[in-house]
Amino acid sequence: MSDTSSLDALIQALRRLPGVGVKSAQRMAFHLLQHDRAGAQVLSQALAQAATQVRHCERCHTFTEGAVCETCLDPARDATRLCVVETPADQAAMERTAAFKGLYFVLMGRLSPLDGVGPRDIGVHNLLERASDGVVQEVILATSFTAEGEATAHAIGEALKRRGVHVTRLARGVPVGSELEYVDLGTIAHALADRR
Amino acid sequence: MSDTSSLDALIQALRRLPGVGVKSAQRMAFHLLQHDRAGAQVLSQALAQAATQVRHCERCHTFTEGAVCETCLDPARDATRLCVVETPADQAAMERTAAFKGLYFVLMGRLSPLDGVGPRDIGVHNLLERASDGVVQEVILATSFTAEGEATAHAIGEALKRRGVHVTRLARGVPVGSELEYVDLGTIAHALADRR
Repeated sequence: MSDTSSLDALIQALRRLPGVGVKSAQRMAFHLLQHDRAGAQVLSQALAQAATQVRHCERCHTFTEGAVCETCLDPARDATRLCVVETPADQAAMERTAAFKGLYFVLMGRLSPLDGVGPRDIGVHNLLERASDGVVQEVILATSFTAEGEATAHAIGEALKRRGVHVTRLARGVPVGSELEYVDLGTIAHALADRR
Repeated sequence: MSDTSSLDALIQALRRLPGVGVKSAQRMAFHLLQHDRAGAQVLSQALAQAATQVRHCERCHTFTEGAVCETCLDPARDATRLCVVETPADQAAMERTAAFKGLYFVLMGRLSPLDGVGPRDIGVHNLLERASDGVVQEVILATSFTAEGEATAHAIGEALKRRGVHVTRLARGVPVGSELEYVDLGTIAHALADRR
């Protein structure tokens, strides 16, 4: 319908969001136009603002609006430990534990040959340089425990070890609060092998 | 983190979309900023454009950019039949059947006392006026077959009948292509009662 081209354009644009199909996009567009036009304006401005203002930290590659992010600039952090995570969301999860006081390197992805994501896309070269700067004494690999996350950790770990860097990986084991009966076999086998 | 206020604002704004929680919003923001900044700009402009340009048709209340929508302006449509639907998406579904050549009245919602949606919010007064204009000979109630949709159809139907308008409702029955064994009991009971 040519007299609703703005609506059609909005539905098409919403479909670019991950996990949003045509039905969800229609529902979102209807909701915004019928019940929350202010929300549409707020979202429009937030998108334009973020798309122009947010860039990558020169040191750790996470999202930031300055040249270097606040975590990297914080003098209270332990610069000898470098934690490698896949995304800013993973970094935020680590931060919420309050158990890590070192610095981060955010890959902004993971190795995924099928999706055409190679070492260059996740900044492996920069990570190797950073880890060999003489300050970093330990690199903690905190990529996901999925097939791609494990492959990424393995590739990065091997490259770092070749340069003589001390590399560790987050422990695999039984999650806190879980009953053994309901834990999957692979996890129990790993927990048994890594018993201490 | 104060140096990612644009990112935080974007995540908060995305959460205003229906069905989007904090995890989905983070994933959407990450996707747009890391993989599709052009998409973020396109969506930003589409939102601003739609929020300012799209309004309601004066005759049928559907979304349009003119004063009256193209369907209402089409002289080839049968003005004696008026189909009442809940949303523009429902109207689009009716149109795709190519089985209806009359005009529409779009409620832009349904009666829902729990959500504070009353007759005024869905334009019942305008519908009653429209149906009594001497041109409309039949009003086809095509609201959803949910509890709220049925209640809406009942309330509108009663009001129209009191004004002497001929009112019909979409047939309830067994969906095309379905095996009787897997059809729910309520549907079979209705199909039996309405057999012809």
